[in-house]
Amino acid sequence: MKKVNVYVTLRESVLDPQGSAVKGALHAMDYKAVQDVRIGKFLELQIDETAGDIDALVKEMCERLLTNTVIEDYRYEIEEAVSQ
Amino acid sequence: MKKVNVYVTLRESVLDPQGSAVKGALHAMDYKAVQDVRIGKFLELQIDETAGDIDALVKEMCERLLTNTVIEDYRYEIEEAVSQ
Repeated sequence: MKKVNVYVTLRESVLDPQGSAVKGALHAMDYKAVQDVRIGKFLELQIDETAGDIDALVKEMCERLLTNTVIEDYRYEIEEAVSQ
Repeated sequence: MKKVNVYVTLRESVLDPQGSAVKGALHAMDYKAVQDVRIGKFLELQIDETAGDIDALVKEMCERLLTNTVIEDYRYEIEEAVSQ
């Protein structure tokens, strides 16, 4: 079993209203040092390592389902085998 | 300016319906090698480095606003100064 961490973030050019709301809330709580907040998704996948080319598999799943590539970027890292 | 990445995940013992739905969708698309999916949040904060103890600041913000510590865990990493 391999553990794959996928990080999905909004592209730089896309407005992030959720991030703005959190920034506003932090400022209201007097955390004025926070200059910017962007919020993305973090997915942890457990993938059967007999599946072959995990790298290609993850890329395909990201492109087809996990991210909206028009407005989102993604990156991922594949961790070593997880004990079962 | 320091960049802080915060990763918020559901605790192990908490059910993740969003992750289950994504897993179901992946299986329906024939990605049967995926054994489990858990979905969390990923926050990118830009913090003014004159703010003092960034570590304590981030911890406090996480506990007070960014995470629900009853059902969520968090970890974070502080990156070096970002060019402005």
